[in-house]
Amino acid sequence: MSLVNGHMLALVKHEAKKGAELKEMPIPEISEEEVLIQVKTTSICGTDLHIYNWDQWAQNRVNTPYIFGHEFAGVVVKVGSRVEAVQVGDHVTAETHIVCGSCISCRRGHPHVCLQTKIIGIDLDGCFAQYIAIPAANIWKIGENIPFEFASIMEPMGNAVHTVLSTSVAGKVVAVVGCGPVGLLAVSVAKAAGASQIIALDVNKYRLHLAGKMGATYQIDSNKQDPLEAVIEWTAGRGADVVVEMSGNPQAIQQALAMVTPGGCLSMLGLPTQPVELDITNQLVFKGITVHGIVGRRMFTTWEQTTGLLEANAVDLSTLITHQFPLSEYESAFSLMNRGDCGKIVLYIDE
Amino acid sequence: MSLVNGHMLALVKHEAKKGAELKEMPIPEISEEEVLIQVKTTSICGTDLHIYNWDQWAQNRVNTPYIFGHEFAGVVVKVGSRVEAVQVGDHVTAETHIVCGSCISCRRGHPHVCLQTKIIGIDLDGCFAQYIAIPAANIWKIGENIPFEFASIMEPMGNAVHTVLSTSVAGKVVAVVGCGPVGLLAVSVAKAAGASQIIALDVNKYRLHLAGKMGATYQIDSNKQDPLEAVIEWTAGRGADVVVEMSGNPQAIQQALAMVTPGGCLSMLGLPTQPVELDITNQLVFKGITVHGIVGRRMFTTWEQTTGLLEANAVDLSTLITHQFPLSEYESAFSLMNRGDCGKIVLYIDE
Amino acid sequence: MSLVNGHMLALVKHEAKKGAELKEMPIPEISEEEVLIQVKTTSICGTDLHIYNWDQWAQNRVNTPYIFGHEFAGVVVKVGSRVEAVQVGDHVTAETHIVCGSCISCRRGHPHVCLQTKIIGIDLDGCFAQYIAIPAANIWKIGENIPFEFASIMEPMGNAVHTVLSTSVAGKVVAVVGCGPVGLLAVSVAKAAGASQIIALDVNKYRLHLAGKMGATYQIDSNKQDPLEAVIEWTAGRGADVVVEMSGNPQAIQQALAMVTPGGCLSMLGLPTQPVELDITNQLVFKGITVHGIVGRRMFTTWEQTTGLLEANAVDLSTLITHQFPLSEYESAFSLMNRGDCGKIVLYIDE
Amino acid sequence: MSLVNGHMLALVKHEAKKGAELKEMPIPEISEEEVLIQVKTTSICGTDLHIYNWDQWAQNRVNTPYIFGHEFAGVVVKVGSRVEAVQVGDHVTAETHIVCGSCISCRRGHPHVCLQTKIIGIDLDGCFAQYIAIPAANIWKIGENIPFEFASIMEPMGNAVHTVLSTSVAGKVVAVVGCGPVGLLAVSVAKAAGASQIIALDVNKYRLHLAGKMGATYQIDSNKQDPLEAVIEWTAGRGADVVVEMSGNPQAIQQALAMVTPGGCLSMLGLPTQPVELDITNQLVFKGITVHGIVGRRMFTTWEQTTGLLEANAVDLSTLITHQFPLSEYESAFSLMNRGDCGKIVLYIDE
Repeated sequence: MSLVNGHMLALVKHEAKKGAELKEMPIPEISEEEVLIQVKTTSICGTDLHIYNWDQWAQNRVNTPYIFGHEFAGVVVKVGSRVEAVQVGDHVTAETHIVCGSCISCRRGHPHVCLQTKIIGIDLDGCFAQYIAIPAANIWKIGENIPFEFASIMEPMGNAVHTVLSTSVAGKVVAVVGCGPVGLLAVSVAKAAGASQIIALDVNKYRLHLAGKMGATYQIDSNKQDPLEAVIEWTAGRGADVVVEMSGNPQAIQQALAMVTPGGCLSMLGLPTQPVELDITNQLVFKGITVHGIVGRRMFTTWEQTTGLLEANAVDLSTLITHQFPLSEYESAFSLMNRGDCGKIVLYIDE
Repeated sequence: MSLVNGHMLALVKHEAKKGAELKEMPIPEISEEEVLIQVKTTSICGTDLHIYNWDQWAQNRVNTPYIFGHEFAGVVVKVGSRVEAVQVGDHVTAETHIVCGSCISCRRGHPHVCLQTKIIGIDLDGCFAQYIAIPAANIWKIGENIPFEFASIMEPMGNAVHTVLSTSVAGKVVAVVGCGPVGLLAVSVAKAAGASQIIALDVNKYRLHLAGKMGATYQIDSNKQDPLEAVIEWTAGRGADVVVEMSGNPQAIQQALAMVTPGGCLSMLGLPTQPVELDITNQLVFKGITVHGIVGRRMFTTWEQTTGLLEANAVDLSTLITHQFPLSEYESAFSLMNRGDCGKIVLYIDE
Repeated sequence: MSLVNGHMLALVKHEAKKGAELKEMPIPEISEEEVLIQVKTTSICGTDLHIYNWDQWAQNRVNTPYIFGHEFAGVVVKVGSRVEAVQVGDHVTAETHIVCGSCISCRRGHPHVCLQTKIIGIDLDGCFAQYIAIPAANIWKIGENIPFEFASIMEPMGNAVHTVLSTSVAGKVVAVVGCGPVGLLAVSVAKAAGASQIIALDVNKYRLHLAGKMGATYQIDSNKQDPLEAVIEWTAGRGADVVVEMSGNPQAIQQALAMVTPGGCLSMLGLPTQPVELDITNQLVFKGITVHGIVGRRMFTTWEQTTGLLEANAVDLSTLITHQFPLSEYESAFSLMNRGDCGKIVLYIDE
Repeated sequence: MSLVNGHMLALVKHEAKKGAELKEMPIPEISEEEVLIQVKTTSICGTDLHIYNWDQWAQNRVNTPYIFGHEFAGVVVKVGSRVEAVQVGDHVTAETHIVCGSCISCRRGHPHVCLQTKIIGIDLDGCFAQYIAIPAANIWKIGENIPFEFASIMEPMGNAVHTVLSTSVAGKVVAVVGCGPVGLLAVSVAKAAGASQIIALDVNKYRLHLAGKMGATYQIDSNKQDPLEAVIEWTAGRGADVVVEMSGNPQAIQQALAMVTPGGCLSMLGLPTQPVELDITNQLVFKGITVHGIVGRRMFTTWEQTTGLLEANAVDLSTLITHQFPLSEYESAFSLMNRGDCGKIVLYIDE
């Protein structure tokens, strides 16, 4: 790749159909409060796959053409005139939710639920490109000891950290329902935070195998065993103290609630595409369960926790990153993701 | 009424059909760790109405014949040989959930979700009688400044206290969905605990009127207004910070979740008789909501809070108790409850 | 008073000695992100008295000449070019701590402990003036139903709210040590939030009398009774569940810790001028106490709670405001404060 | 050792002077609610050393003659007639605080601060013996996969777990002040629970070396460096998010408070023998610190967490246990402890 005359290469969701196109685009201008980042690595989220595949959700949510992608790390090459906390040369990644800062949620210290949130790579141009402009307030600096391919994954790891650490897990039995990349990260975060046992549930053998490598003490293939019975049996009738729902699958959600021990906690990040029937009386009220809906990352407590866990080498990103491609081989990367036999895929960007 | 030869009058659920019968029964024997209480007042719970009416739930849950009723207050007349913390003459009421004390939930300090719980008046003989035997560990002493008819209501008030105080409400907007007696108590507890605004929702005019008298700042008749729209408009688009679900009605539960502000809290005590469809993605996850399933009362933190609120005259039980009958007029009391134009009904027991 | 040619009247701490001077000063210029407020009311804080009296603390802390005062309410008359969330005509008060927004404390959602905090009326020109410039991010809008003299007191009331609501007080026994204006506000906030009993301690009869009017159920004159013995006796040996330390007096702090019940909570806002000897082993560790150091107000959760309590008429500011003067009679106001026979003093500013 | 005619060997604190005596004592009788345990291993606590050395504290606290020792594990050989939850043959250890069960602290779910607590090995005969009688309610069963020498240490490990997990440490910087056995356990628990960095402080090289082996990322010899400066420098000016005070040394406590980052947490288990002067204004209030006094173990949440961490092999007891002796060599064991060049010492008991 090369950069000529204020232009850069970028992966553009070019048209309202499946696929994307690598093409020259102008390097973004930055405002007084933004910084320009030379992207070194970017990783593919399930959301990017929806956009690439142009499924129903994507058709309703995004407007073409634009640059997609939102997980990345890079180096600051330019800062706006009002920016003080970030310098040229800083290694950085970024919170991808740009919030308003003045609504009641923001003023309550809950910007992650700001209703005016704009998301990089969905509502705004993203990071599948050589350069990206980001508000300084969203920048998260990383030490030079964290490699770019790991820093790239701090955003989805933040989802896992936010979910798992929404309650105390040290010494407890944790079940992770759904072992896509964020579920696998949840397994590793739970282990790092002292979970006694970590039960991983999925229907994909490859992912269950990864879960085992990342810290799960028991893997349940929900196609082969009744997951609820398996959890109840494994826990000698008690159920899991903390259940982390990452699948978005209605039946799995029902099972997730049913496998929580009385007085326990269910934290939900997965997004079902339809309403889900729950047995509120027996599974929620009589058991005295607490349910946390989890969105985004706490700004910036989650980022600090994520950084701390990485600096302690407590979370195993080497195992999670199963494949790396140059950005130009994006088609292979998306094909692989569609097949599902992968952990996290990183795209690196040559200078 | 009179007590002859070790016998007492008691309201017995005598047969597997609608109704009950006031008849002579033996005064209960007490074990080494129990106390015998002369019942002064008892109040009627919705559960008692189910049993009286002999509906589907009651047919599946209770075995006749037995004495029902579980909300009461009285005076201790006899204590078992191993009882130290309770004395003859003490004014008392009681926690109605008898727990095992040794399961994992009990040892975690969560006895309210003990799976071996036996409930007075459902699994065991109850308090619609001149005397009742209760384990000393379940006794809650009351000061002589709390009248018996108020002490009788501490058990359901404990449900309201447990629900409302499951999160902080001071200075916040609280919505109470369902204004039966426990909902009305929730209104009053929310006011006592400093809620800024209290929105009461029901379809019964009589109860909405009581809600207004007990502290609600806005009453919504869900048959006449769209409750969700009304709450959103009243709160200038923000929704309620805390929603307390007391109705058990599936549609009301969906609305309850939808009216919680992003980052807010839904506490659920109502018991739907069927599964409820929830929009988990938009209403729970994206809004970052916390849901608490609430059962029983924390032992005995909830009782302490309940006592403290009563001693501060912060909760308006005089308004809540709309009717009082002698036990012998139980048929009138149950008829009135079936009509629904009442708050709490107290039955008093003559010596 | 009158405003001529871009000038205003302001109370200036003019020299490094006792007193202050009312004089003409230029109306402040505002930056792009600030708003200009016409001050309607301002109230006197203990800090202002230190500055007026020019005690040791003031000599070490502030630089003359400057305009002091920090509690106020008024109307916005001008907004900077980048201000969106505030409009001309808005009734407002303001958070007086101006924080950096980018340090780790700010990014953690703990801006109240930002080490770069600048305080209005101490580090920057204050509000004892006809006009004041304030960053839009610090503005708190008030409804027109809250009178200016009440809005003026929301800042110190915020200290009381932050302190009292640092733990749950509903149904509990709360002791307030020190009944200056913030202590009196703590009494009223504790009552509003459902405290069962509120024990007020001070050595000033006038303030103890006000405490009784504002909700204290028991007043202890610490010069006449041993305060620890009195609390222990009043609580039948148990001590207070929550103790709120507002005095800053070393001996009172020792007593405050000693009067907390095992497992209870001590929240400290008072500022001793010297180190305090504590019996950590017996009073803190063996009793399993939690101590909260409280500074400022949570931004802006505390402001929301404060507003909510005011809107519910749950806190009695009418009783607290014992005196009102025009700004020009500042000498009488400060004399009265030095005598101590007052609650809160409001200064109003004529147009 | 041998057991003859209802007698056993026990280490008796025989007289009011330094030392102890191994002698024959009757095997304890058990009450209806107790169990008899054959002790397999016991470990020496600092408290036992105070008793052995007969220092001022011991002279004021214990009455001779009696069997001391309180950390142990063993096998149940007999159960009282009312015991249901424990069986002969169970491998067990025990909570050493025997609480009343009916005071307000016990009923609040805070039995660890029960004022009627009696402590095994201090107020009652202890476990430096072949047999011990323990109330069934205090028994904690262990899986056969946990070796007795590890189970013996669950009691002091519970102190560390209670202290470290009193706040969230995942991804945070934790400082442990004082690296005796409980401090070393705190280091290991902090690591197990995901602490990002763990700073260990002590003046004993041997213990600092063990701290490094058990997970500390930075060891400070407080005799050689200024501990406060060292922590501030190591954390780039921020201080530690969580400080765990295990030393009981007044100066170390002052430093511990000073090294907490604004908004952070100090958890104190160490027991100073005299009052400690604290700079409340600058170190506690202005920084908005939370301090937790920690005593004993939560019953039985702490035991569950402790078990969970052991079952996950997350805490390194092999490194902690530096020495093992038969009970008969108790003199060597206590001598070694007096020299201080040891981690935890286990005494095993031959059959």
